[in-house]
Amino acid sequence: MLNNALEYARQNQAGFLEQLKEILAIPTISTLDENNQDMQRGAEWTANKLKSIGMNHVQIMPTGGHPVVYGDWLNAGKDAPTMMIYGHYDVQPVDPIELWKSDPFQAEVRGDNLYARGSSDMKAQVLASIYAVESVLKTGGLKVNIKWLIEGEEEIGSEHLGEFIKKHKGMLKADFCLNPDAGMLGPNEPAIVTGLRGLMYAELRVYGPSKDLHSGGFGGTIHNPAQALAELIAGMHDKKGKVTLPGFYDKVRKISAKERAEFKRLPGNNRKELLKITGAPELWGEPQFMPAERVGGRPTLEINGLLSGFTGQGSKTVLPAWSMAKISCRLVPDQTPEETFKQLKAYLKKSAPKTVKWELIGLHNAGAALTEVDNIGVQALAKAQEKVWGRKPYFAREGGSIGVVVQLQEYVGVDSVLCGFGLPDDGAHSPNEKLHLPTWRKGIESIIHMIHNLSA
Amino acid sequence: MLNNALEYARQNQAGFLEQLKEILAIPTISTLDENNQDMQRGAEWTANKLKSIGMNHVQIMPTGGHPVVYGDWLNAGKDAPTMMIYGHYDVQPVDPIELWKSDPFQAEVRGDNLYARGSSDMKAQVLASIYAVESVLKTGGLKVNIKWLIEGEEEIGSEHLGEFIKKHKGMLKADFCLNPDAGMLGPNEPAIVTGLRGLMYAELRVYGPSKDLHSGGFGGTIHNPAQALAELIAGMHDKKGKVTLPGFYDKVRKISAKERAEFKRLPGNNRKELLKITGAPELWGEPQFMPAERVGGRPTLEINGLLSGFTGQGSKTVLPAWSMAKISCRLVPDQTPEETFKQLKAYLKKSAPKTVKWELIGLHNAGAALTEVDNIGVQALAKAQEKVWGRKPYFAREGGSIGVVVQLQEYVGVDSVLCGFGLPDDGAHSPNEKLHLPTWRKGIESIIHMIHNLSA
Repeated sequence: MLNNALEYARQNQAGFLEQLKEILAIPTISTLDENNQDMQRGAEWTANKLKSIGMNHVQIMPTGGHPVVYGDWLNAGKDAPTMMIYGHYDVQPVDPIELWKSDPFQAEVRGDNLYARGSSDMKAQVLASIYAVESVLKTGGLKVNIKWLIEGEEEIGSEHLGEFIKKHKGMLKADFCLNPDAGMLGPNEPAIVTGLRGLMYAELRVYGPSKDLHSGGFGGTIHNPAQALAELIAGMHDKKGKVTLPGFYDKVRKISAKERAEFKRLPGNNRKELLKITGAPELWGEPQFMPAERVGGRPTLEINGLLSGFTGQGSKTVLPAWSMAKISCRLVPDQTPEETFKQLKAYLKKSAPKTVKWELIGLHNAGAALTEVDNIGVQALAKAQEKVWGRKPYFAREGGSIGVVVQLQEYVGVDSVLCGFGLPDDGAHSPNEKLHLPTWRKGIESIIHMIHNLSA
Repeated sequence: MLNNALEYARQNQAGFLEQLKEILAIPTISTLDENNQDMQRGAEWTANKLKSIGMNHVQIMPTGGHPVVYGDWLNAGKDAPTMMIYGHYDVQPVDPIELWKSDPFQAEVRGDNLYARGSSDMKAQVLASIYAVESVLKTGGLKVNIKWLIEGEEEIGSEHLGEFIKKHKGMLKADFCLNPDAGMLGPNEPAIVTGLRGLMYAELRVYGPSKDLHSGGFGGTIHNPAQALAELIAGMHDKKGKVTLPGFYDKVRKISAKERAEFKRLPGNNRKELLKITGAPELWGEPQFMPAERVGGRPTLEINGLLSGFTGQGSKTVLPAWSMAKISCRLVPDQTPEETFKQLKAYLKKSAPKTVKWELIGLHNAGAALTEVDNIGVQALAKAQEKVWGRKPYFAREGGSIGVVVQLQEYVGVDSVLCGFGLPDDGAHSPNEKLHLPTWRKGIESIIHMIHNLSA
């Protein structure tokens, strides 16, 4: 059965590539009004594709913005596992167009790569999943229920997806969600992202005198709000890079020995490589944790912006009336952004001197997400990747936040299994975005294996 | 003799006022190119005025910008004291013109006040000095040598005056310089400014990664340059508001008991008043010194500006590549800006972590100036003010910096005696600038007394 499906995929390679070129030719740029009709065409193409491989209940469902494409195949029965597959059919704009070597919407194969906007991010990833399901279904081996959730607003922040998920909770029930919008760490380095950090983003304003003062006339008697802000910020970390907000680490889930071993394997621990990528003079952070652990498994507090007083060329002897910092915390399970905001506020209440006033404005909240490594989807995919690439995948907990992962976990209780067959050098949002075809073909096979593993 | 001079001044009051209106009618706005001819006319009017009262060697002398008017009367002989009188004939622009109740260049008397641009700052102060010298000279009592240094660029930073003073050192030798460009603390509160703080102004840049990073992907492994800057700034003061730069206080001249008593008299110590003027929630600074002492007699370190990362509306999760602070120190005798710059650099060398790079760029230097209270000019003026207003003047050491005072002290060894007959509510640089005529007339008399005291 497995072999039949793999054989089906191999024999249809040419056709798969032609269909991929078809959807890549539709400029589904979600951020541009002028492409609204293309967005509709993209949704229709995707829905038709799902129908053509035998999916049921295929619908183009409205949201406050671009529509969601849904479809399912539930014939494996109640006792079989249900896998949701998430994807997006929208793409980034193509500017600067003059840097493209070929038309971004006329996919061109050069060597091992296919060049087109949306090739890596993520039309080919959606199609890889569709082809894998098709290969198993057409060869009579599908013993897993499938649900598709394919949105059109990922590149503009998935603004309406949270509402959609909330509204269609029942429809979206599943054992886990395969999300192939992440990537490989290299052509021979498969990875599964099991964790994402949450986010609390706020603006701190510190107020001193009611207007800018002459620093000569008042310096020494009035607390400078830029200085006061710096003093408050400096107190937010101790000397070892630990965040000092009261209770900040109370709910941080401990990193298990098993997780630690996974963190240790990640290339993100390579000091030299990190210094090369970032251009920073030296690494920084909690010394008792490895760099990859600090990014994936530990919460942080960052200053994203600073503004006060005179910032132009030359000198102006002003004692500023106010100062401002953008402050965000990356969060890990089981921290919540709401509690973190309160902790920051408590720190300020405790630490701010009476010589200034302050205000803390919440700007953005997102929860952290963690999928256990023993999740059936993770296990099935890991085994599949090992089979296809001949090596165990990395289990990565990453530092960023992805809305849909948190929303599925929070609203429907569905954990995500993040992977993908894009490579770090694909240029996802850049000119000459490309897809490495040999990796893509292996990707299709790995999902076939994964589906097989789920029912084995 | 004294009485004759006073009588002369009283009898010529109407004429003095008419002449004041004449010079106020010339729009000597030094910053506007369109007023360049007016600047020339202003210099000529001033030179002619000096000639008309009997001054010698009157010249309009070129600088790199607007000319300086010089003149002298050295007939008192070598053994008599020589008083230089500094002034400026240029004025500030008049915008917003719609807020003026009368034409800024058609002086109008309303009640006790004369309204015109340059009335308080400082054409009336220059003329008060000229009338005082005229009154004494015309009544045969001038026993003091006089030198005039009247520039045309004070309102644009006296850019070319330093060079001029350096070049004409010999010509400008004097026992002290009367500078009536300061003011009274109230209509019945005469003051002499004996000290000004110096200035060291620099820009500190802190560099982290070579470009802005995703705070999710790198937060926790790379030292955030905005945070690093805040940490460096926070370390520049101790908890009691003392500056921590190594050696910062080494050369700070101790405040004597006599000076302390003078500081104590100043209205600048009134907490409630200071909070009202500044709008700050509470006072701040070295607790063992009074507010007026902190401003006039103690050095400070101020943050004049801060900039880093994202400062727009909303949130952007960036780990900034760099951060910047404008930092200035107000200095007192015997600190020097050059040494202070080195101290700041030494602090940074000692304190900056290896996780960031930094750069310190010097932007502006000015020395501090202090005139001893027993200077003959200070003594003569203090006695004169007490006579005219019936109360001892305040001896104030102020927090700002005035270039000409430092340059005369540094290049020619001439200490300045700063006073003036403007009031705090004159609106010097604002619409409806005015001169309080009763105070101005007393001002003329006080300089007559001063000249008398110098030769008594």
